[in-house]
Amino acid sequence: MKSAITTAASRLHELHCAACGQVHSAFELQTVSACCQQPLLASYDLSWPPRPEGIIDQADSSMWRYGALLPLLDPANKVTLGEGLTPLLDLPRLGAHYGFSALTLKDEGQNPTGSFKARGLSMAISKAKELGASGCIIPTAGNAGVAMAAYCARAGLRATVVMPRHTPEAFKEECYWYGAQVELVDGLINDCAARVRQLNAGGELLDISTLKEPYRLEGKKTMGYEIAEQLNWQLPDVLLYPAGGGTGLIGIWKAFAEMKALGWLAPETRLPRMVAVQAENCRPLYDTYFGHQSNCHAYQGRPTLANGLAVPRPLGEPLMLRVLRESQGTVVSVSEEAMLEGMRELGQHEGLFVAPEGAAVWMAARQLQAQGWLRADERLLLLNTGSAQKYLSNVVGRAWG
Amino acid sequence: MKSAITTAASRLHELHCAACGQVHSAFELQTVSACCQQPLLASYDLSWPPRPEGIIDQADSSMWRYGALLPLLDPANKVTLGEGLTPLLDLPRLGAHYGFSALTLKDEGQNPTGSFKARGLSMAISKAKELGASGCIIPTAGNAGVAMAAYCARAGLRATVVMPRHTPEAFKEECYWYGAQVELVDGLINDCAARVRQLNAGGELLDISTLKEPYRLEGKKTMGYEIAEQLNWQLPDVLLYPAGGGTGLIGIWKAFAEMKALGWLAPETRLPRMVAVQAENCRPLYDTYFGHQSNCHAYQGRPTLANGLAVPRPLGEPLMLRVLRESQGTVVSVSEEAMLEGMRELGQHEGLFVAPEGAAVWMAARQLQAQGWLRADERLLLLNTGSAQKYLSNVVGRAWG
Repeated sequence: MKSAITTAASRLHELHCAACGQVHSAFELQTVSACCQQPLLASYDLSWPPRPEGIIDQADSSMWRYGALLPLLDPANKVTLGEGLTPLLDLPRLGAHYGFSALTLKDEGQNPTGSFKARGLSMAISKAKELGASGCIIPTAGNAGVAMAAYCARAGLRATVVMPRHTPEAFKEECYWYGAQVELVDGLINDCAARVRQLNAGGELLDISTLKEPYRLEGKKTMGYEIAEQLNWQLPDVLLYPAGGGTGLIGIWKAFAEMKALGWLAPETRLPRMVAVQAENCRPLYDTYFGHQSNCHAYQGRPTLANGLAVPRPLGEPLMLRVLRESQGTVVSVSEEAMLEGMRELGQHEGLFVAPEGAAVWMAARQLQAQGWLRADERLLLLNTGSAQKYLSNVVGRAWG
Repeated sequence: MKSAITTAASRLHELHCAACGQVHSAFELQTVSACCQQPLLASYDLSWPPRPEGIIDQADSSMWRYGALLPLLDPANKVTLGEGLTPLLDLPRLGAHYGFSALTLKDEGQNPTGSFKARGLSMAISKAKELGASGCIIPTAGNAGVAMAAYCARAGLRATVVMPRHTPEAFKEECYWYGAQVELVDGLINDCAARVRQLNAGGELLDISTLKEPYRLEGKKTMGYEIAEQLNWQLPDVLLYPAGGGTGLIGIWKAFAEMKALGWLAPETRLPRMVAVQAENCRPLYDTYFGHQSNCHAYQGRPTLANGLAVPRPLGEPLMLRVLRESQGTVVSVSEEAMLEGMRELGQHEGLFVAPEGAAVWMAARQLQAQGWLRADERLLLLNTGSAQKYLSNVVGRAWG
């Protein structure tokens, strides 16, 4: 086993089981923890914490600027399309109209392949290359599959993408252009996961399912580092995030914890209240959080315009609940009609053509304001996970309500 | 008239006619030059040229990091969606396969609204706001119209977009989501320009046609600054660019000239040979450059998969010819089938889903290599102007040839 200290600039230290904490090697190909079949979380040597300027590569305008806090050991294995460092945009017109004093949106739609999934897949496919995988397979609601197909093409790895048959054509078509094999399944992403297990029974391909390998999470956490750096190490009061599989929510929270350990956030810094936004058509976390079920294991979801939220039984549910509890956050669910209304408002008043997931986040802010959950002076950060482009066939003709 | 020196960080000095050089005010709303009806070019006070680190705002990861060399006087008028600072990506797999020693692509598809047009329109709409316009109108082959609609929505300005009826639906639909008025015309962009003159006979709206106002060019030139900064002030030997209206080609060359004047490029720096890439279906510059016509004034073009190249009579033709002459460049034209082949190669081997314009640029490099116009050791930079997403309906089902 190689030592983390001598291999590279990365400070990767070890992996531990999210359920029981048992340590696992970070230098071998891993899936879920062998002990509990739960997600593995990467940890880093943060014992010698320099200031951000000693860690962040300012000349790199991608998420790889935080390379020392990412798990790739040899930069030669980096598989990148320039993902990350997406803009934080003020929403002055909507903010003024609805009486929000500070309203900001991080636009992940400007990533390669048009969504935040680029971060996790750039990281996971880089590690797949580093650890010697020959090909990858993924069950997906859409965006993650497109991103995996792109990064596998760039790495020269085989790619199999399994997605619901009802997913808009643009998601499938883009996978074809990357040369991926696409399998269509009647059902939602959990049905796709079953098909992945069947197709990959022999284990020839690396399973890149959400939280079933440890590194997509590490890519996603870079959103948290960027938010802090872009806000000059002052965090917002409330962060609203569209939670399907939940990797982003968990990853951002992990980044905040790491920055605290590094001393990059002032000791008195209050971390944001984290709001998970779901679709009324598929809201397992909402139902668990508000006590309508004890967990999501038997939840039945329906398709939604926000494909990315059609995740009925997320493996990361316990981790998401922990984030909500630790941050004193909450869960909001949004209707299909409200998503369309949000898309119209962000388009017509701010010039943003956001995915239904991003629109849901904006409408969730309006809901929380109406309920009095937000104070008038609080600084809000909305996370838009993708561009609306690939969703177009599902919303065409709805621009005027 | 205000003085450029005292107004803001911008070093904007004056405008001059591209044909006769006559000076015009940079502090009033301008269209083409009153003297010759030709493009107006902005100039800056470069007499006190500090090093790049004294000018470039490193904390700004958008094209606005070069604000001092852009024409906006008051930052409060900035209309931005985070455009620019797009990645430069090596193409190692295609480079090795085809024997290019250094092959790099700048991916403008990661801009807001999915194309390089975001740069010019962010700049032009910011200036439109600064100079008091109440609304804007544009004839477009697609991407520029979408970008104008987005930035007008963000600025709270009315927008009218006039595009060919045969443009893929995704371009029109995105404009609707931004609340723009869309007019469809039978024909190409020159026919749209005629319709713009008719619709705007009273002059209520600012005409944002390519090179008919001076500021889109200033936004586009930031590609040149970025290329130099991202390559650590070492320029490539050959730069290949898809030239329709030509603003990017002209703008990048303008940036190189400004950087020479500023002393940011070493005196011995050889500027790149600039290659304009056109579509066989619409190649006015090619025909003029190779002597098949004396100019493009009567050129008849046909539609092409690469909408952005369907510009039969570009106002900027003389300026483009000057760039080709000064840089010892050339023009290449590419067939529709070759564009599809280029899209497949970039997708399957590099994980890039590029617009047909970008694919044409790659295929032009292969043509020039086959002709012996390129030396084996030359460093090539390909400019991909947009994502393929909005072109999807025209290429669906063609991923395997």
